[in-house]
Amino acid sequence: MDSSVKITIIGAGSAQFSAEIIRDLCVSPGLQGSHVALMDIHEQRLEMVYRLARRLAAEIGAEIGFSKTTNREAALRGADFVINTAQTGGHGWTEAQRVLAEKHGYYRGARLHDFPQMALFLEVARDVERLCPHAWLIQSANPVFEGCTLMHRETKVKVLGLCHGHYGYLQIARVLGLDPEFVTAETKGFNHWIWLTDFRYKGEDAYPLLDEWIDKHAEAYWAQDNFEFHDTQMSRAAIDQYKLYGLMPIGDTPRFAGWWYHTDLAAKQRWYGSLGGFDSERGWQRYLHKMEGNVRQIERAVTDEAGRVTDIFRPVQGREQIVPIIDSLVNDNECCYQVNIPNEGQLVQGFPDDLVIECKGVVSAAGIRGAASPPLPDKVVIGEMIPRWRRAECAVTAMRSGDPDYLLHYLLHDQRTRSRGQAEGLLAEWLQDPRNAQLAAWFGGAKQQ
Amino acid sequence: MDSSVKITIIGAGSAQFSAEIIRDLCVSPGLQGSHVALMDIHEQRLEMVYRLARRLAAEIGAEIGFSKTTNREAALRGADFVINTAQTGGHGWTEAQRVLAEKHGYYRGARLHDFPQMALFLEVARDVERLCPHAWLIQSANPVFEGCTLMHRETKVKVLGLCHGHYGYLQIARVLGLDPEFVTAETKGFNHWIWLTDFRYKGEDAYPLLDEWIDKHAEAYWAQDNFEFHDTQMSRAAIDQYKLYGLMPIGDTPRFAGWWYHTDLAAKQRWYGSLGGFDSERGWQRYLHKMEGNVRQIERAVTDEAGRVTDIFRPVQGREQIVPIIDSLVNDNECCYQVNIPNEGQLVQGFPDDLVIECKGVVSAAGIRGAASPPLPDKVVIGEMIPRWRRAECAVTAMRSGDPDYLLHYLLHDQRTRSRGQAEGLLAEWLQDPRNAQLAAWFGGAKQQ
Repeated sequence: MDSSVKITIIGAGSAQFSAEIIRDLCVSPGLQGSHVALMDIHEQRLEMVYRLARRLAAEIGAEIGFSKTTNREAALRGADFVINTAQTGGHGWTEAQRVLAEKHGYYRGARLHDFPQMALFLEVARDVERLCPHAWLIQSANPVFEGCTLMHRETKVKVLGLCHGHYGYLQIARVLGLDPEFVTAETKGFNHWIWLTDFRYKGEDAYPLLDEWIDKHAEAYWAQDNFEFHDTQMSRAAIDQYKLYGLMPIGDTPRFAGWWYHTDLAAKQRWYGSLGGFDSERGWQRYLHKMEGNVRQIERAVTDEAGRVTDIFRPVQGREQIVPIIDSLVNDNECCYQVNIPNEGQLVQGFPDDLVIECKGVVSAAGIRGAASPPLPDKVVIGEMIPRWRRAECAVTAMRSGDPDYLLHYLLHDQRTRSRGQAEGLLAEWLQDPRNAQLAAWFGGAKQQ
Repeated sequence: MDSSVKITIIGAGSAQFSAEIIRDLCVSPGLQGSHVALMDIHEQRLEMVYRLARRLAAEIGAEIGFSKTTNREAALRGADFVINTAQTGGHGWTEAQRVLAEKHGYYRGARLHDFPQMALFLEVARDVERLCPHAWLIQSANPVFEGCTLMHRETKVKVLGLCHGHYGYLQIARVLGLDPEFVTAETKGFNHWIWLTDFRYKGEDAYPLLDEWIDKHAEAYWAQDNFEFHDTQMSRAAIDQYKLYGLMPIGDTPRFAGWWYHTDLAAKQRWYGSLGGFDSERGWQRYLHKMEGNVRQIERAVTDEAGRVTDIFRPVQGREQIVPIIDSLVNDNECCYQVNIPNEGQLVQGFPDDLVIECKGVVSAAGIRGAASPPLPDKVVIGEMIPRWRRAECAVTAMRSGDPDYLLHYLLHDQRTRSRGQAEGLLAEWLQDPRNAQLAAWFGGAKQQ
């Protein structure tokens, strides 16, 4: 097989992410002959990733072509697949928004950084609609849930959200001591808000094995508290959510569900261990530090002409679904994946058809077809899905309407908000930040005090 | 016309309520010959209302028969209409539950008294299903929204919720100085959560008149702060909600929407005037006091053989829709009313068919048909309807399942909840109250600390 597919990566300067995609492409026989257009506004990082990409292809002996540009339009023209991994303003702007929210009493931030992200997503989607309307837009930067719903509602683009959070079930298997080869799992919900609806070991329901672990081993596991990084998936919080809702929360879900696990560092430590979990001030710094370390390692490898970048990025298909899905779509290689797609056919029952939900999907040259499955239990729907849906509707409708009242509603329904003035104060200051000039113009600057 | 309809009033000891229903029956030509079965567990009040009922019928010269009983089964047998106005444990138990919640940090209570109410509603509905399955069950005690939804989902009874809150538009008309004869209004949503979707004066949109009043007269009106009792409908809070959501909240809606109007007495006073509104410690005491005064006045009138009870209950049809609706159903007198009925046909779009919603309905011998109308605006749906729906689903599912986790979820989503322990502490103490023995048994006492 030989393809002449053009794949554009927006935000390609994310070295780790781009390298994994490119490595996966290089080892995909069906996608040889493809061209990858790397696009980023950060020239230096772009140049580094471009060199890395060529080195990877050369070392693996793959026939993949590369181009690089800081011009989004140029990158998009003729694209068959557009992968959007861009983070507006990078981690710096995200952190600045968090600090601002903390000043107004929102411990660890108020997720306002989702709004500039959505504004960028929509720009990209509109460019795709105009320049390469038949392309698949694969959204991998967050917020996947809100972002994909927004793009699906505002454009005619074929939007597909992808995330590897659903692999969280493998961590459960690991901790339970199950051979992952014999473990199957089904998860569904909204992105970062998914639940383990079916969990089997050698074909048998494996939930009883989890229950047994909770009874006999969980306390000892938590007492160790010595995980190299953190283990949200098997944290005390995740197990508590399982008890409260009846299904295990998977992947990023236990990071975010339930405001009461996150009121302060002490609460986070109680529920996630001494680091306070991935999203505490400690856990997040460690994550950023680790990310920087990875980037430096990649930079060193690229600069070292004598070394091999395949020592870092082993030449075997990784865990990301992006390239296998492209392969399924291009080469009609029908397979099942975890996808974020519109809720047509009520894949997640009781929510709008034009909401982008996460479920299992069958992918082939015919496209993507979500797999029907039983409804989520009432406890999950009432306890977690409806409130999360409302938050998404609020954010998406804010972006579509430009009405700043939705921003206020967004904050007013945050459990940390103690008064109307607190929410209004944060919003006003956030919209005044020069980095938010475009958003502030869209929201008219009205109604802010 | 002459009917032989049997109307049963559960909780008939509510003198003011029962007397108005009976007076309305007495002045309805089409319902002469009816029999009213008064049922209450409070014998003394029941006796008083029985005497009052007979006095009313005699003074008006109406042919209505009466019976009284403390036995619910006896009252229900053969009933064509069952009106449930009962409040479990009376105001005393409601107040005790409020005091308990305040002890745990829930200013003005946590609405836990809705649960014993729903338990009673369900008992009554199951009795109706068994003893008089063809009867209409007219639910007038609160919570109408949750209670009707619960009864509709758990039984086959024809449930109809009624409330006079929708008349709030007349207070708007009054304050704007509009002749009510030329004012029309449409409101819909959930009970106590309804919005003015159409408001006309002499056929023209009257919202601009409201906007003008807000611009020119509202501040002066609020500065008076001298309403005899309170004016929630035209309060600063109601107008603020109108600005936030784009439609006026009607009747009891502005009492309850938006947690930020209710954080403490000072907030309530800022938004509702010096009394702090109907539901503040001041407003509510005044309401209870007024109710007691009414009851004493009625008692005096009944005891005074020389007086006339029609001096208190003028012999003209009052504002309650209950008797006119019974007349429409019995005598095929087709009319429009404000009703709470199942959401079949998506009368309030985007919510389940088996949720009981409030809207305009056409009533005749054929039954009740909800009137279709345009969807509520996004701002109302996202800002207020979805969260209110979730709360109702949580309460209703708690009652259906007996799973105490729903009670916990109910409190955890209350904006006043600051920690998991706070919610658990209140629940545990509430379930231990001897007056909640039956509920505690239903919820199994499990999972409470």
